[in-house]
Amino acid sequence: MKLITLKDGERLDDLHRNGTKLIQNPAYFMFGMDAVLLSAFATVHKNETHMDLCCGNGVIPILLSLKNKGTSYAGVEINEKLVDMATRSVTLNGLEDKITIHYADIRNMDSFDMNFDVVTANPPYMATQTGAKNESYDIAIARHEILCNLEDVARAATRLLRFGGRFYMVHRPGRLVDIMTTLRKYNLEPKVLRLAQAKADALPNILLISATKGAKPHLDVKSPLIIYDSEGQYTEEVRRIYYD
Amino acid sequence: MKLITLKDGERLDDLHRNGTKLIQNPAYFMFGMDAVLLSAFATVHKNETHMDLCCGNGVIPILLSLKNKGTSYAGVEINEKLVDMATRSVTLNGLEDKITIHYADIRNMDSFDMNFDVVTANPPYMATQTGAKNESYDIAIARHEILCNLEDVARAATRLLRFGGRFYMVHRPGRLVDIMTTLRKYNLEPKVLRLAQAKADALPNILLISATKGAKPHLDVKSPLIIYDSEGQYTEEVRRIYYD
Repeated sequence: MKLITLKDGERLDDLHRNGTKLIQNPAYFMFGMDAVLLSAFATVHKNETHMDLCCGNGVIPILLSLKNKGTSYAGVEINEKLVDMATRSVTLNGLEDKITIHYADIRNMDSFDMNFDVVTANPPYMATQTGAKNESYDIAIARHEILCNLEDVARAATRLLRFGGRFYMVHRPGRLVDIMTTLRKYNLEPKVLRLAQAKADALPNILLISATKGAKPHLDVKSPLIIYDSEGQYTEEVRRIYYD
Repeated sequence: MKLITLKDGERLDDLHRNGTKLIQNPAYFMFGMDAVLLSAFATVHKNETHMDLCCGNGVIPILLSLKNKGTSYAGVEINEKLVDMATRSVTLNGLEDKITIHYADIRNMDSFDMNFDVVTANPPYMATQTGAKNESYDIAIARHEILCNLEDVARAATRLLRFGGRFYMVHRPGRLVDIMTTLRKYNLEPKVLRLAQAKADALPNILLISATKGAKPHLDVKSPLIIYDSEGQYTEEVRRIYYD
């Protein structure tokens, strides 16, 4: 592990993978179950290249790079302070050869390569007209569609992907219709849907979707992912996602 | 129960509701779990009017009329032999005052009333280019989108419904993206989605969706409906749907 400088308010969190650590700051967006589930749902095969949209503190490129055999991983983030945090986490874990963090706006990706095999996103979930707005700006832009909405995410993903490339996203079930219509509009055909719910009898509250650029229609709906068992412990599947 | 004539190949099936019987013929489409689940998923409130598209042997209007407090129920069917079968089932059960079966093509509903509160549909599931075609024509038009496709169903539903009226449909999870994009295109905003699966660890194979004409976007995704318990018996919920 290399020496890096932690700034005011920052802490180091353990990612439970060979001592990998992530720099986080509670004043910004902290990664949660959603990011962990997305990193297990997405796959980057050997020789494939990856880009994460709205990468925040870099948790998704870092987790993906540890679990997959792709050639390169990248993230793009509009909040300069999170770009700095993610870049230091990459350095801290010695992943500079595999992961690049870009400071850019996904609404303007013209200078980027257009042949990615895999794009991922854990974007802001809430349409701007909804939700509490008494948060800090750093939190608000991560939660609400202020600087990027679903349409921006789909447009960036389809521009970055090669034909046949795969887009993986985590979102909220309440936005499912928006997601389906927007992805199809941008030639990203939804192929796999998996909903996750806290317990076996709970309502689904996390949505995982994969879409393939230019594919024919047919959606494969998976069984729900159950997060906690009846005793409130992680289910076997979630334990494997976190610790295997 | 009134006297009616059964024709060659027809049989009487018990609907488990106060002795209600349905005329069916195995050479035509026989009702299944899908129709039963749709009849429990849809609600027709007091003073409301209902229309079922592609009503086949009339099972959905008949089941709905027995479980709900609506003013009137109706079905429209393009296969004249099924119109005749459904009409005799309505007479047999003394439901002529509540249920009307129409012989018509849902692609041409101009002569129909336009202020229905509720429309239901258990339409053909398969896009015409897929599926086995070595069936009889009567079976094929019930299974494949030969005489009506999803777009025809959505167009007819939105034409028949009042603003704020509700559309309930049963379909296949593989068509979810087509369903979402088509319903929204016809101003039928999907509001509730429920998937059903044979067992707790099986893949979902039935999709229930309700959409409201002119509503704002937000989808309520329900917990999956499980059909059989671990011993292969109907779950408590399905038993209630069939027998309560």
